[in-house]
Amino acid sequence: MSLLRRELGAVLRRHREEQSRTLRSVAADAGVSLGYLSEVERGVKEASSELLAAICRALGVRLPEVLVEVADALFLAEAAPLAPVGFVPSSLTPAPAAPLAASASSPAAVAA
Amino acid sequence: MSLLRRELGAVLRRHREEQSRTLRSVAADAGVSLGYLSEVERGVKEASSELLAAICRALGVRLPEVLVEVADALFLAEAAPLAPVGFVPSSLTPAPAAPLAASASSPAAVAA
Repeated sequence: MSLLRRELGAVLRRHREEQSRTLRSVAADAGVSLGYLSEVERGVKEASSELLAAICRALGVRLPEVLVEVADALFLAEAAPLAPVGFVPSSLTPAPAAPLAASASSPAAVAA
Repeated sequence: MSLLRRELGAVLRRHREEQSRTLRSVAADAGVSLGYLSEVERGVKEASSELLAAICRALGVRLPEVLVEVADALFLAEAAPLAPVGFVPSSLTPAPAAPLAASASSPAAVAA
């Protein structure tokens, strides 16, 4: 099960890293301790609504947008694993199945 | 400021009421106390990620869908108040401004 606080923490951390900011800087702007922000980002601690709003303000992101990103991550985590889409090097693809005609001329078939 | 826990509680309550279920029934299915669920619905208590997931399961709703609904509510709450859209009884609409021609024939204009 993918937990809300883990996905929320990951989204908050991504926003901070995209801005090349330190935990210390964002924590100071949000008025929370560095340890608290670190625990929230790692999904260890549940952020209270007030402090989550303060962290979003410090990051310059809107809370509802963060929630939509978290929802997307949870949707993806819930979905069944899908086959990869896109280019796959031929060295990684399994050898094609032998065509029927080739099977018919296999040693066993010849022996029959 | 519209708080996450308040909007979240309102969304959870709406889902429960749409299903005509009692607090007692949903709390029992979610394995939480009736008082806890009531406080979460009223936005008094922050739901932990685990218990929020359990409440969503008990309601038969997906957490990411709930989050999107909460995000929508927060977007709306953030937005500036908009003019009403739709039918407005004529008794509620202000009297139309007098057209320019009518202004020209007002008593003041006639006196000029």
